[in-house]
Amino acid sequence: MADLRSAFLNVYSQLKSELLQDPSFEFTDDSRQWVERMLDYNVPGGKLNRGLSVIDSYRLLKDGKKLTQDEIFLTSALGWCIEWLQAYFLVLDDIMDSSHTRRGQPCWFRLPKVGMIAVNDGVILRNHITRILKNHFRGKPYYVDLLDLFNEVEFQTASGQMIDLITTLEGEKDLSKYSLQQHRRIVQYKTAYYSFYLPVACALVMAGENLDNHIGVKNILVDMGIYFQVQDDYLDCFGNPETIGKIGTDIEDFKCSWLVVKALEICNEEQKKVLYENYGKPDTANVAKVKALYNELNLKGVFEDYESKSYGRLVTSIEAHPSKPVQAVLKSFLGKIYKRQK
Amino acid sequence: MADLRSAFLNVYSQLKSELLQDPSFEFTDDSRQWVERMLDYNVPGGKLNRGLSVIDSYRLLKDGKKLTQDEIFLTSALGWCIEWLQAYFLVLDDIMDSSHTRRGQPCWFRLPKVGMIAVNDGVILRNHITRILKNHFRGKPYYVDLLDLFNEVEFQTASGQMIDLITTLEGEKDLSKYSLQQHRRIVQYKTAYYSFYLPVACALVMAGENLDNHIGVKNILVDMGIYFQVQDDYLDCFGNPETIGKIGTDIEDFKCSWLVVKALEICNEEQKKVLYENYGKPDTANVAKVKALYNELNLKGVFEDYESKSYGRLVTSIEAHPSKPVQAVLKSFLGKIYKRQK
Repeated sequence: MADLRSAFLNVYSQLKSELLQDPSFEFTDDSRQWVERMLDYNVPGGKLNRGLSVIDSYRLLKDGKKLTQDEIFLTSALGWCIEWLQAYFLVLDDIMDSSHTRRGQPCWFRLPKVGMIAVNDGVILRNHITRILKNHFRGKPYYVDLLDLFNEVEFQTASGQMIDLITTLEGEKDLSKYSLQQHRRIVQYKTAYYSFYLPVACALVMAGENLDNHIGVKNILVDMGIYFQVQDDYLDCFGNPETIGKIGTDIEDFKCSWLVVKALEICNEEQKKVLYENYGKPDTANVAKVKALYNELNLKGVFEDYESKSYGRLVTSIEAHPSKPVQAVLKSFLGKIYKRQK
Repeated sequence: MADLRSAFLNVYSQLKSELLQDPSFEFTDDSRQWVERMLDYNVPGGKLNRGLSVIDSYRLLKDGKKLTQDEIFLTSALGWCIEWLQAYFLVLDDIMDSSHTRRGQPCWFRLPKVGMIAVNDGVILRNHITRILKNHFRGKPYYVDLLDLFNEVEFQTASGQMIDLITTLEGEKDLSKYSLQQHRRIVQYKTAYYSFYLPVACALVMAGENLDNHIGVKNILVDMGIYFQVQDDYLDCFGNPETIGKIGTDIEDFKCSWLVVKALEICNEEQKKVLYENYGKPDTANVAKVKALYNELNLKGVFEDYESKSYGRLVTSIEAHPSKPVQAVLKSFLGKIYKRQK
């Protein structure tokens, strides 16, 4: 696994140097240095789970057979396209959310010389995906399917981000907009497609599959992505900050978190009043009242119940799938996230 | 021409309603209204020259034959993709430049409820291009060529924007970075590809041409785009604000304008000192000193000379092209911009 990671990182260096020599643009020394610094700052610093899982999924689809050098390179390149996509979203999201830190360092747009140039850097990151695909997949029979796939998933992610932003609109804080249905919609579109479906879809396309024949796989992965985001919402409030690496602020930020929609669903009128009066305010006293209410409503127990039911449902769906290698891919994903603490 | 424009605007309405019913995303009422308002505010309000010229170019390539309903629709759809691309760039550029108005109304991000959501709206606009292409061109033999074309041109535009932003970086105001070569690079990449090459390239692709066989056409159009931008730089300082519809601020904004690079090229040491001391300062006294220097250097005359030489060179290149219909396309473009006052 450490080997795989270092092979994966080597591919990053190669892709980066190709991008810095792209013949479609005449770089100046300044702009080449700018892009290199921007990439190193934003692309490879995460956990790389999405990218690595393309290689992993492809190997499982090939019945665990050892991959050729070429297959390792190409699956890694697709994995990096997803990491680039993620970097693009994060650079722009941090601007929109006025965030301060990301992956333990200041957000890119917070750097003194960057500022709003970060908007264009986000656009450059997005464009790098199509450059990488063109450089390495232009001649493949599935090239157009890859373009369509990335385009559709990007559209879904941006649309999910849109409803998240509109729902959380400053000055319109209105808890009555929040429901399980709305929560599901936001996390499904904003997170599940690109984080769960896209890596497996890339592996399927490379293995010569037509994605239209794998709607079932997509549904399971989207379902898993929703479960993953519910965990995230849970950990934001109940996780250990030292383990998850940040202090959650969903309550202060008036986020459409699974916890608040569950609370709204099961609370009585009096408790609802507490939520309406305290949710989305920066004061620690307000936050404490919301947390006390979450405990009163036993949201920990409600979550544990949700978690075990989701797990059971996912396992059942996976085992109903006709292909053993596809089952292996899905189980590998599920195994990585079930009962995670961070 | 008025008919063409209204046919073109009808296609906008159809494309918009398809986008608002896109089956890849579950709209809420709020988000559907948001997108509709965002599109109407940002997409159709410009002069529509880029979009209309796809239809125009395609007709000329077809020897002026009357287009079928289907051809009118498809060329219009491609034209709208370019208008969407333009809207995407403008929405984001206005954020990066802290602009206040655009097309006679406040910039989108300046609207009270919008703010930084505009960044994601820009992303949505960009994603609409691939949705439109997929909806209407997925089955065409040239579908992948269209995707590659839009991807490459977007990459070049974003890269041009990057060197423009880096060169003008606040706090690094350094006139020694400015040269004719740097100016040419910025305008070629930031403007010429998407404004001049892309409309004709769309028409060529739809006419069944392979763009690799039309590098000469690309070079002429890029050249024309550079000439167009030099006119823009000239009009920013010497044009009639009532005619061009805005008051130029290139001098205050430390822009890498053709005028300042020409001035730097022909001035003596003493005049250079005046430029270094006054260029890029908001004070009207500084601006006046720069304008006085421009007059001292007879930049009006230098520009007129540049304009007539460019025109001559472009006509010669166009007439050397082997295809009469292609010549007609290029001459039509040139005719629209030669000696323009706005």
